[in-house]
Amino acid sequence: MLDQVLQHIDRQRETAVEGLKQLLAIESISAQPDHTDDCRRCAGFLGKNLEQLGLSVQIHETGGHPIITARNQHQKDRPTVLLYGHYDVQPAQPLEQWTTPPFQPVIRNDANGFPSIFARGASDDKGPIWAHVQAIAAWQKQAGQLPVNLIVLFEGEEEIGSKNLENFIHSHRQWLQADVALISDTAQFARNLPAIVYGLRGLVYLEVFLTGASHDLHSGLFGGAVPNPANVLCQMLASLHDENGRVTVAGFYDDVVELSAQERALWGRLPVDEARFFQEIGLAAGYGEAGFTSVEQRWARPTLDINGLTAGYQGAGAKTVIASVASAKFSCRLVPNQDPEKIERSVKQHLMNLCPPMMKIEFASHGASPGILVPHDSQAVKLASQAIEIGFGHQAVLMREGGSIPVVGLIQQELGIDTLLVGFGLPDDRIHSPNEKLDLGSFYNGIRTAAALYERLSHLNKRK
Amino acid sequence: MLDQVLQHIDRQRETAVEGLKQLLAIESISAQPDHTDDCRRCAGFLGKNLEQLGLSVQIHETGGHPIITARNQHQKDRPTVLLYGHYDVQPAQPLEQWTTPPFQPVIRNDANGFPSIFARGASDDKGPIWAHVQAIAAWQKQAGQLPVNLIVLFEGEEEIGSKNLENFIHSHRQWLQADVALISDTAQFARNLPAIVYGLRGLVYLEVFLTGASHDLHSGLFGGAVPNPANVLCQMLASLHDENGRVTVAGFYDDVVELSAQERALWGRLPVDEARFFQEIGLAAGYGEAGFTSVEQRWARPTLDINGLTAGYQGAGAKTVIASVASAKFSCRLVPNQDPEKIERSVKQHLMNLCPPMMKIEFASHGASPGILVPHDSQAVKLASQAIEIGFGHQAVLMREGGSIPVVGLIQQELGIDTLLVGFGLPDDRIHSPNEKLDLGSFYNGIRTAAALYERLSHLNKRK
Repeated sequence: MLDQVLQHIDRQRETAVEGLKQLLAIESISAQPDHTDDCRRCAGFLGKNLEQLGLSVQIHETGGHPIITARNQHQKDRPTVLLYGHYDVQPAQPLEQWTTPPFQPVIRNDANGFPSIFARGASDDKGPIWAHVQAIAAWQKQAGQLPVNLIVLFEGEEEIGSKNLENFIHSHRQWLQADVALISDTAQFARNLPAIVYGLRGLVYLEVFLTGASHDLHSGLFGGAVPNPANVLCQMLASLHDENGRVTVAGFYDDVVELSAQERALWGRLPVDEARFFQEIGLAAGYGEAGFTSVEQRWARPTLDINGLTAGYQGAGAKTVIASVASAKFSCRLVPNQDPEKIERSVKQHLMNLCPPMMKIEFASHGASPGILVPHDSQAVKLASQAIEIGFGHQAVLMREGGSIPVVGLIQQELGIDTLLVGFGLPDDRIHSPNEKLDLGSFYNGIRTAAALYERLSHLNKRK
Repeated sequence: MLDQVLQHIDRQRETAVEGLKQLLAIESISAQPDHTDDCRRCAGFLGKNLEQLGLSVQIHETGGHPIITARNQHQKDRPTVLLYGHYDVQPAQPLEQWTTPPFQPVIRNDANGFPSIFARGASDDKGPIWAHVQAIAAWQKQAGQLPVNLIVLFEGEEEIGSKNLENFIHSHRQWLQADVALISDTAQFARNLPAIVYGLRGLVYLEVFLTGASHDLHSGLFGGAVPNPANVLCQMLASLHDENGRVTVAGFYDDVVELSAQERALWGRLPVDEARFFQEIGLAAGYGEAGFTSVEQRWARPTLDINGLTAGYQGAGAKTVIASVASAKFSCRLVPNQDPEKIERSVKQHLMNLCPPMMKIEFASHGASPGILVPHDSQAVKLASQAIEIGFGHQAVLMREGGSIPVVGLIQQELGIDTLLVGFGLPDDRIHSPNEKLDLGSFYNGIRTAAALYERLSHLNKRK
């Protein structure tokens, strides 16, 4: 039966791409209030499509952007798979750096000559969730039903910290009971090297506002006698790293579990071309914490990166102004065993300690989630490896990834199950950046892999 | 005759304000390319008004914004006064902080209950130059002529570093020969304490651009292994000050002339209310270089202040991005005897020394001018003091100011004459800030003072 499903998928490629284009055209930017209606429209679009496949769909209000769930007819003797994905996307700024507009998806070759679809969200995460919708469609149409009990859970706030998802999962934890969770929101290790990801970094995202005088001041008439929030903010932020690239916040590394020799050896055997990795992003060399390879720095070390700086005059030419307020958005990537709340408190305290008494410091929190490690020798991982080999025609590698998917921790905590992270993107997809794309070959193989995953996971032992 | 001129001025207050409103409504923002036509329109407006007073007017092309000159009929035996002013204004951002729109001038009471005209440029420098135009008008209408030979020189690039003025003055230095220069672009010391300014700080304004990767990167997938231009820029900028608020650039203070005990004593006798000064700008205390009073910090010490910071995502909410480029606008106020070019070179070198090898650092220059000291016991200063007492009904104090007027150095260098700095603004005029205003009483007294200046300076000894 899987063969027929896969053949159906191969015949329906154009249809799959057309649907994806419609999905990508919806500007579901969760961070920007003027796109609230677009997020709702995107949820509706997905809900309608899942309903047409015979699933029973619900759109859940959250106070923020809606959550969509969909279930097939569950049967007692089959394992249950909880499929998670997100339909929201990152802001598209800086817009002027896009070759074609971010919400007008187009197909063209990427820099290496591979046909790709370019649009915000193509790889993160609309392409992958649409691959699953297509796989579900193929099963329903060719076999009349999926081989597993399926619960689809698509949210619209992943890019802003999944704020309302925690409540939702907690209050629906009985209804969401499953044997394994499945997420396609990670990347392959490289072209022809599909991957299962068993570790993710966590995230603490903060914004700091530093205020001096009550209004902007003339830098000539006042400069030298008044606090300049931009100057002081730079001093505060500069103090967060030492000369070896280590974060100086008290206790920051206390709970970091050192990498095992075994894991370092495993990663050392991956076909990593460091020179090429940096070259592809226009760098002659990397720049990170001393004593670690770039893979270790990205997968297994915590960071603190400024994501945005705002102060004073930013227009053309010059303005001799001392701004009243300077602000920065910044975030820490965390590794497993670090406590996001503790890190957030320590970072805030570090900055507050540096705030001169005549200035005011304030914070906004934009999300916190822990780093994740899941077993990489489970039955589920073995079944997923088989599915990937069916879908891609290549063996999967086991890897970690530097990004964060807050729901993995939530699912572990609330539902007590592990998550399979099987992604369809490539490392050069420029997710969160201008000219985000998804490789079309990976998209098609992703649909095949998703279809195979549902078949393979039908053999999963049910939880007691 | 001066009495009749002053009576005429007092009768024409409403007319003077109406004309000023028209001048303030022109958005002559020199820094912003989309206001190029407005700058030209502003020059034309002033030219037309001066022509109607019987002066011979020329509008000079400069490659940038035009320069206007106007001359009366010169007579051999009279001294010549070169009146300088600027018709361009600072950008009005942040617009949302204006109570009324910056280019829709309105009259209302200021925070202390004094009637004022609110608009960008009201105090810096359109109000003061309009006061001179009104004084010229009063002399021409009441006496048939001015009592001095006058050369009016109004430029449109003061707020962007007077780039084209240097060439103009150099190539017209014979034609601009005068016995004294006169500028009303400074402030009174306080209400009822009009001032003659004998010292100004200079300015070096730079912009730095720091580039890491060739495009914005996902902070999860890349963070920890790549240079973050925002992080590194903060470290670079933070390194520019030590913990005592002193600038750390090599040689920065080498040419600074220490304040004399006499000058410190003179300033110590000024009615300075430090607590109130800071309270009026919403600060519980100041923040500056140790060992100096706030007046000394502002008038006689060099500074380095960030005027703008730009990096990464600045919209609502969060974006987990490592920006490809981070930039800052910043400027040094210089004191007399510091060499702007030497300081510019040293600051650039300081930052270049800190640039990691895999990053790119670039600079843009937005103007450089030296600090200024003029004699404060000259015949011209004595005559100006008499004019101020006639115009304001109060004795003038002698003071320095922290701002910069690049033309004063140019005039000294090219024409070999000193400049009288007699200003009509108040320290709380919020120049360069939202809600800039000009006190109407000061405006009227400014017109009177300008008229009296022309009469008093007619007694100035001509240069040999």
